[in-house]
Amino acid sequence: MMKDIQSTIDERGIAIQKVGIRDVHLPIQIKTEDGSFQQVLASIQFTVSLPMEYKGTHMSRFVEILNKWSAKPFAEEEMNAILFEAMEKLEAESADLILDFKYFIQRFAPVSGKRSLLDVDCSFSGSLKRGEKMQFTLGVKVPYTSLCPCSKEISQYGAHNQRGMMNVRLSYNEGFDCIFIEKLVNILEQQGSCQVYPLLKREDEKYVTEHAYDNPKFVEDILRDGVLALRELDGLKWFSLECENYESIHNHSAYAAHEEVVGKNC
Amino acid sequence: MMKDIQSTIDERGIAIQKVGIRDVHLPIQIKTEDGSFQQVLASIQFTVSLPMEYKGTHMSRFVEILNKWSAKPFAEEEMNAILFEAMEKLEAESADLILDFKYFIQRFAPVSGKRSLLDVDCSFSGSLKRGEKMQFTLGVKVPYTSLCPCSKEISQYGAHNQRGMMNVRLSYNEGFDCIFIEKLVNILEQQGSCQVYPLLKREDEKYVTEHAYDNPKFVEDILRDGVLALRELDGLKWFSLECENYESIHNHSAYAAHEEVVGKNC
Amino acid sequence: MMKDIQSTIDERGIAIQKVGIRDVHLPIQIKTEDGSFQQVLASIQFTVSLPMEYKGTHMSRFVEILNKWSAKPFAEEEMNAILFEAMEKLEAESADLILDFKYFIQRFAPVSGKRSLLDVDCSFSGSLKRGEKMQFTLGVKVPYTSLCPCSKEISQYGAHNQRGMMNVRLSYNEGFDCIFIEKLVNILEQQGSCQVYPLLKREDEKYVTEHAYDNPKFVEDILRDGVLALRELDGLKWFSLECENYESIHNHSAYAAHEEVVGKNC
Amino acid sequence: MMKDIQSTIDERGIAIQKVGIRDVHLPIQIKTEDGSFQQVLASIQFTVSLPMEYKGTHMSRFVEILNKWSAKPFAEEEMNAILFEAMEKLEAESADLILDFKYFIQRFAPVSGKRSLLDVDCSFSGSLKRGEKMQFTLGVKVPYTSLCPCSKEISQYGAHNQRGMMNVRLSYNEGFDCIFIEKLVNILEQQGSCQVYPLLKREDEKYVTEHAYDNPKFVEDILRDGVLALRELDGLKWFSLECENYESIHNHSAYAAHEEVVGKNC
Repeated sequence: MMKDIQSTIDERGIAIQKVGIRDVHLPIQIKTEDGSFQQVLASIQFTVSLPMEYKGTHMSRFVEILNKWSAKPFAEEEMNAILFEAMEKLEAESADLILDFKYFIQRFAPVSGKRSLLDVDCSFSGSLKRGEKMQFTLGVKVPYTSLCPCSKEISQYGAHNQRGMMNVRLSYNEGFDCIFIEKLVNILEQQGSCQVYPLLKREDEKYVTEHAYDNPKFVEDILRDGVLALRELDGLKWFSLECENYESIHNHSAYAAHEEVVGKNC
Repeated sequence: MMKDIQSTIDERGIAIQKVGIRDVHLPIQIKTEDGSFQQVLASIQFTVSLPMEYKGTHMSRFVEILNKWSAKPFAEEEMNAILFEAMEKLEAESADLILDFKYFIQRFAPVSGKRSLLDVDCSFSGSLKRGEKMQFTLGVKVPYTSLCPCSKEISQYGAHNQRGMMNVRLSYNEGFDCIFIEKLVNILEQQGSCQVYPLLKREDEKYVTEHAYDNPKFVEDILRDGVLALRELDGLKWFSLECENYESIHNHSAYAAHEEVVGKNC
Repeated sequence: MMKDIQSTIDERGIAIQKVGIRDVHLPIQIKTEDGSFQQVLASIQFTVSLPMEYKGTHMSRFVEILNKWSAKPFAEEEMNAILFEAMEKLEAESADLILDFKYFIQRFAPVSGKRSLLDVDCSFSGSLKRGEKMQFTLGVKVPYTSLCPCSKEISQYGAHNQRGMMNVRLSYNEGFDCIFIEKLVNILEQQGSCQVYPLLKREDEKYVTEHAYDNPKFVEDILRDGVLALRELDGLKWFSLECENYESIHNHSAYAAHEEVVGKNC
Repeated sequence: MMKDIQSTIDERGIAIQKVGIRDVHLPIQIKTEDGSFQQVLASIQFTVSLPMEYKGTHMSRFVEILNKWSAKPFAEEEMNAILFEAMEKLEAESADLILDFKYFIQRFAPVSGKRSLLDVDCSFSGSLKRGEKMQFTLGVKVPYTSLCPCSKEISQYGAHNQRGMMNVRLSYNEGFDCIFIEKLVNILEQQGSCQVYPLLKREDEKYVTEHAYDNPKFVEDILRDGVLALRELDGLKWFSLECENYESIHNHSAYAAHEEVVGKNC
C-alpha cells in the first residue's frame, strides 16, 4: 500500500491558517432573485486550516468537493454546506472559499427601452470556523460614468468625463440575508454621474450625455454617495467601497476608498 | 563528460522556425534622440531557428548574450549585432528579438507649462535572416482623449468623452532610419480630440476640456487621421494602426484597425 | 429628427479595414461533438469594414446582432450567418468576429478513473468578405507536463519538469469541417511528457510521475510532435503552433513556435 | 479667477479615508544595501485622507510631489518625507503611498558560478498619520522550485516539481530598520526545494535537479520553513506569507497562507 506522506507527523509546531487550491475554474449555478439561477464561470480559491500535527492536507479532496457541488444552484446556504464538508473531510478547524465570476444583469436603454446584458464582476467569499456561523462576504464591481464638476465649472463648454468602477465588498449581521447582486448594482450605479449601458440608440445617447452633464461628480462625491446608500441597507455589518475613475485627460486613475463597521464609524 | 543531448541528431525532419526564451525581464538602455539614453525595464522574447538535424537549442546562451548587451545603450544597430551573435553562437539561420518596455517622455501642461513624465508602452522587434538585412519594427501605444461627435451633435450640452489608446507598429524601407519614439508620439497624439497629460492645473484643465469639445472625433476619425499622418513619414514601408476608445457610456470599447504597405493600399 | 453624423460623407478617401466593438462579454452556447451544447463566457471583438465614403459605422448594431445570436447554439454555420447579417445591416464589404472563451472537457484520472473537468482556453475567429466563403480559425490552448531530457540524462536521479502550454490555431480547406475542440485537445495533450489532470488520487500521481519520467521531451520535441500530429488532420489548410514551458528551474519560459501552410512547408 | 470647486463645503458629513491617484508609472531610485541605488520602474498609488468639510482633494499635487521625489534615491526615510509633504500640502490627517516595482538581484550559478540577474517583484507601502510614526511594509515575491514529497515517495523514479512563488509582506517594530530586499530574498529562497536561477549551464542543471530531488517539500513545508525563518528576523512586528506552487501535473495551483503578529501567534 502506498504511504500517505501527508498524514505523517510534523514537528515544527506550526498550525497553517490556509492551505488548498487556487486558480481552479469551474462553471457554477448562482441563485437569482426570482428563484431561478444563472450559470457563471467561477475562478476559485478553496482552503482549510491544517493542524500543527499534520505534514500536509489532501489536495484532491478539494477538487472532489467542488465537482460535486458545481452542478447545484448556489447561494449562501450551499456555501455553508461546502465549507462544512471540507472541514469534515479534511479534519480542519476552519475552511474558506472564494468564487470570482462575471454575472449578467438585464438593462433597458433609458429612452428606447432596448434590452441588453450588463456584465458585472462579482465575488462570493465564505469563511467557516468550527462552532461558529459562516461569515459571508459579497463583492461587486459596478461600472459608471463620472463627469468632472471642476472641468464643467471652469470651462465655457463641455466637461471631461470617463468610465469609472465602484468596487464594493460587504457582509451582514447574523440573522440578516445578504442583498442580491441585482439590487446592489441597481443601488450603486445610481451614485455615478450616469449609469452605463451596453446598448444605446441615438435618443439614449442624448439622454446619458445630458444626464451626466446635469449631474457632475468627483470621485469623492461618488464614494460619499455610495457610502450613504450602503448605510441604508438593513442589517449591514461592514462594507468597504473603492471608486476608480479612468481619467480621460490623464494616463492614470483618480481613486477614493472607504471602509466602515456600520454604526461605528466616526 | 556530460552528454550534450541537445546536439544529438533529430530524425523527424522538422526545422523549427523559432525556439528560445520568453518572459525574461532585464533593465535595458534605450538610445534617445538627443544622443543620450534612457534606462527602461524590458520584457523579452529571444529566439532562433533550429535546423532539422538538431534535437534542441542551448537555452542558456540566450541569457548570456542578453546579459552582455543589457549594459550598453541600445538601438537598431545593437539589435542587429545581438541577432547576429545569436545566429553565430547557436548555429542558426535566423534570429528574432522582441523587447517590450515602458518609455517616458517629458510633457509640459498646455497653459501652465508644468512639466511631467508621460509613460508610453513601446516595443522593438528585430528579425534577422542569414544573408539578409535585419527587419526592424517599432511599436508604440499612444494615449489620447476622444470626444464623440454624435453625442455633441444630438445633445443640448455636453458630449461623452474618454481615454483612448492608439497602437501603432511600423517598419522602414532599407536605407531609412526608424523614427524616434518621441517624434512618433508627438505626431500621433495630435490625432485624438486632445492629448493627455500626467499633470494639469486648473487653467490647463479648462484648456483640454474646451480643446476636446472643439475637436470631436469618432474612433474612425482618429484612425483615419492617424493613417494620413503616418503616410507622411519619409521612407515608411509598412504600418498597422489600431485605435481603442474605452467608452465612458458603455462597459466595452469602440475599436478601429488598419494596416498598409505604404504606397500600395487600395 | 436627430442628425445621423455617422452617415455623413467623409472626404479623406480612406476605407477602414475594421471598425466595431471590443471587450464585450456575453454568455454563448457552443455546439459540442455529441450534438448537445456547452454554455461558455465569451470575450468578443466584432468588426466590419467601412467604405471610404462614410464618416462612421453604427456601433449599437453590433450589440443588437450579438444579443440576438447569443441565445442560440453556435458553431461555424451560425458564425457565418452573424457575419452575413453584420455585412448587410452595416453595408460593409467584410466582417470579422472573434470569440475567446474557456471550454470544459471531461477527464478521467489514468488509474482511479476519477472524473473531473479540464478548462481549456479556446477561440473562434470568423472572417467573411462579400462574395467569398467565410474563413474560420479555431484556437485552443492545451496544458501539458514537460520533463527535461537533458536534466534526466545528466542527473543521477530526478529530472526537472513543469507545466507547459500549447497554443494552436488552425484553419481548414474549403469543403472540410473543422475538428471539434475535444478531439483537438485529445490529440495535442498526447504530445507532452504527460497530460495534466484536474483530479489525481495517489495511484494516479504515481502514474503521471513515472509516465513523464519515461517520456522526457524538450519544448522542441513537443513542438515537433505537435506538428507531426497536426499534419495528420484531414483537410487542414494552415496551422500555427506555439509551446511554452514555465520552467521550474528559472523565472522565465522556454518557448518554441512553428507555422505552416500544410503541404507547402520546406 | 477660476472657482476652486474642490475647496467648497461638503455637507454629507463623511470624512474619506483615502483619495488620490492610482496606476501612475514613474522611474524611481531604490537605495541598495551597499549604499548605492538601483533604478526601478514603479507603479504607484498615492492617497491622503479628506476631512468631511471639503468637497474634494487636489489631484495635481500628488503628481507634483512624486515628480520632485522621483529623482532622489529612495528608502524608508524618503517615504516618510513624501507622506509628510502630502499631508501638509493637502491639509490631510493621513497619507498612504504604495510602490510596486521589479527589483534585480545578482545571482551566481551554483557550480559554474555564471552571473545573471534575478527579477523579483517588490512593494514599499508607507502609511503616516498626523502625530504618529510612519508604518512601513515591505513586500517581496520570491520564486523557487518545489518537488513533491508524495510523488517522490510513491513513484519508482522521478518526482513532479514546478516553479512556485512566495509572497511575503512584513513590518518592523519601532526602532528597528527594515531588512534589505537582497537579504530577505536570500533567506526565503532557501526554503523551497531549490532556488531558481536565470542562467544555468549543464553542470548547474545537474546540481539543481539533484538538490531539489534531495530536498522534497510540500507547499505546506515551504510555508512552515518560511514562517520559521521569518520569526528569526530581529525586531519583526508582523508578517504574512503566501506560497503558491504552479503544479506541473494540474492546470491549477497548490496554495498555503499564514499571517502572524510576531510573538503573539498560537
